[in-house]
Amino acid sequence: MTIQSFIPPRRILMGPGPSDISPQVLQALSRPTVGHLDPLFISMMDELKQLLKYAFQTENEFTIAVSAPGSAGMEACFVNLVEPGDKVIVCRNGVFGERMRENVIRAGGVAVLVDDEWGKPVSTAKVEQAIKENPDAKILAFVHAETSTGALSDAQALGQLAKQHGMLTIVDAVTSLGGVPLKVDEWQLDAVYAGSQKCLSCVPGLAPVTFSPSAIEKIQARTTPIQSWFLDQSLVLGYWSGEGKRSYHHTAPVNSLYALHESLVLLQNEGLENAWQRHQRMHEKLRDGLEKLGFEFVVEMPYRLPQLNAIYIPQGIDEAQVRAHLLETYNLEIGAGLGVLAGKTWRIGLMGYGARAENVSLCLKALEDAFV
Amino acid sequence: MTIQSFIPPRRILMGPGPSDISPQVLQALSRPTVGHLDPLFISMMDELKQLLKYAFQTENEFTIAVSAPGSAGMEACFVNLVEPGDKVIVCRNGVFGERMRENVIRAGGVAVLVDDEWGKPVSTAKVEQAIKENPDAKILAFVHAETSTGALSDAQALGQLAKQHGMLTIVDAVTSLGGVPLKVDEWQLDAVYAGSQKCLSCVPGLAPVTFSPSAIEKIQARTTPIQSWFLDQSLVLGYWSGEGKRSYHHTAPVNSLYALHESLVLLQNEGLENAWQRHQRMHEKLRDGLEKLGFEFVVEMPYRLPQLNAIYIPQGIDEAQVRAHLLETYNLEIGAGLGVLAGKTWRIGLMGYGARAENVSLCLKALEDAFV
Repeated sequence: MTIQSFIPPRRILMGPGPSDISPQVLQALSRPTVGHLDPLFISMMDELKQLLKYAFQTENEFTIAVSAPGSAGMEACFVNLVEPGDKVIVCRNGVFGERMRENVIRAGGVAVLVDDEWGKPVSTAKVEQAIKENPDAKILAFVHAETSTGALSDAQALGQLAKQHGMLTIVDAVTSLGGVPLKVDEWQLDAVYAGSQKCLSCVPGLAPVTFSPSAIEKIQARTTPIQSWFLDQSLVLGYWSGEGKRSYHHTAPVNSLYALHESLVLLQNEGLENAWQRHQRMHEKLRDGLEKLGFEFVVEMPYRLPQLNAIYIPQGIDEAQVRAHLLETYNLEIGAGLGVLAGKTWRIGLMGYGARAENVSLCLKALEDAFV
Repeated sequence: MTIQSFIPPRRILMGPGPSDISPQVLQALSRPTVGHLDPLFISMMDELKQLLKYAFQTENEFTIAVSAPGSAGMEACFVNLVEPGDKVIVCRNGVFGERMRENVIRAGGVAVLVDDEWGKPVSTAKVEQAIKENPDAKILAFVHAETSTGALSDAQALGQLAKQHGMLTIVDAVTSLGGVPLKVDEWQLDAVYAGSQKCLSCVPGLAPVTFSPSAIEKIQARTTPIQSWFLDQSLVLGYWSGEGKRSYHHTAPVNSLYALHESLVLLQNEGLENAWQRHQRMHEKLRDGLEKLGFEFVVEMPYRLPQLNAIYIPQGIDEAQVRAHLLETYNLEIGAGLGVLAGKTWRIGLMGYGARAENVSLCLKALEDAFV
């Protein structure tokens, strides 16, 4: 059998990511590949670091993109910061908090769990209690924007709490970066990872990360080797920085980095605050329409993510059939529920380039027609 | 400061990778992104597996692309197959054998080294001796095509040797896949990893891997957890296969996988044997020209890789200046030496789409003009 070229249709991506991608970013992606040690490419990487610093609102020198998806960004933070035996307080209010726990254990750490109901933010009071009960805990790990539920946690308060107790923070900003305020330096966050395919509207496959000087200190003071060679950030840094020669670590995903650069140029041109406001405006438009159609949100207003709208599915609906109908009829993708919310909720993403009025209106009309 | 879009020039990539990429592959790369659970995407992944099986010459069901560069493909093989305390015989005749040793140690294994001179193939006799001295060794790890030197080792003989002693093999085929014969099933190789950016001429960032049923058995019989969550192939498999529903593990690098699919369609259309022959013919053309110019090869004829030509730099030459000259004047990239060969050698790649007569002629003429 001969396999033919794959020609995908133009989907409208309103799930939990990958999000809609600007034609400009796709164009950047397909520019001619250059060598990963080409001086022009090294200059582009320097710009990329600058742009990432802006997006993260940080001056951290160690601000780069891991050459793999967000999950690898998560793992990069844990395997570099957690040494065998280190106690880590892990906040779990959705799928990704649980994944953090997995990471702590696989890195040889001890996870102390702070559980909150799915759809609720992390409780600062519970975390404070856990810290009091575990004065030897070294790291506080939490998800800023839970992609599985659409809940936003108070990263500023949690960051402050950690600092008061001399702890480092590991923060999942996969869905928050570019969509809601995230201020790494002002909030004193230490190791923060994100994904390219959410509110940055770049292709999936890269994980922006930033490490504070305190995080770097902890890495440098390790007495045990980092278990991953690929994710060993002390080796990666030799490629991403240095005045003189860059040393080869792995072959960078050159074209994906072009795309990330372009998506960040677009963010820079729009302005971070404007991007946050656009996500909020589009959310309000979508929310008004969904409420008119009778849908209820999983997450309460004060801590609801504008870029990820989790809604309950009406009783008696074959939810997979509705999603298939939207995909087949309108090329419109919305997301299924995940974990304990699977089958009970849909997740409608308004991320990055996807947070546009035309997407909101199409989605509302298509849902209306599917039910009436 | 406002950062502008990055517009790279069209380079001619004749280094050790990334290699020249066909315009068709770049075009595929920039097709509209679809969701990583979209039924159309899942079908494409099934085709991709079939195409990879063809490229690897295997029927292994577990034949996929790791969502990260070749180095992560290497790590995927080691962290899944090596359990703490496992003894691994590691053949080291260049940079990547040493990297294998690093991987064994970080996975908690015990590395027994078999050293060969850089530029020589792995000595089957030495390996046999090491196996005799270490009857408890479970795995034999070697590099099929050493990218740092251009030496080809006898993967068939080494595979046979391992099987005779009931050992598994981990094989680095990063530079060999698609460029020289590699027959995973016939040679009884167990865990083989490659890179997208060498003789497949796809963009960098993906690592094709294949695991034999024996390798899968070893993974399933583990008594210790796999230290990496991201590279845990038992979890990854839930996304890449299964008759019914695919389970979410991480967000696949959708567009990069389009490009890999397209590059493998091109390989399928050309035919593997034809691709191997083309690499050989182009090597001969280049070799004849280089020898006329007085260059000497690092690797002797019988085990010289056609796709990676390491040559000694003539005395008294500022090698970095010559490479910069080629890049600036002709947009032509050739590779520097790596490891102990740094400063002493150049590496001229003829990989995949880069193995064309026009590239060979340009390279020869540019080198001639640089010296005359």
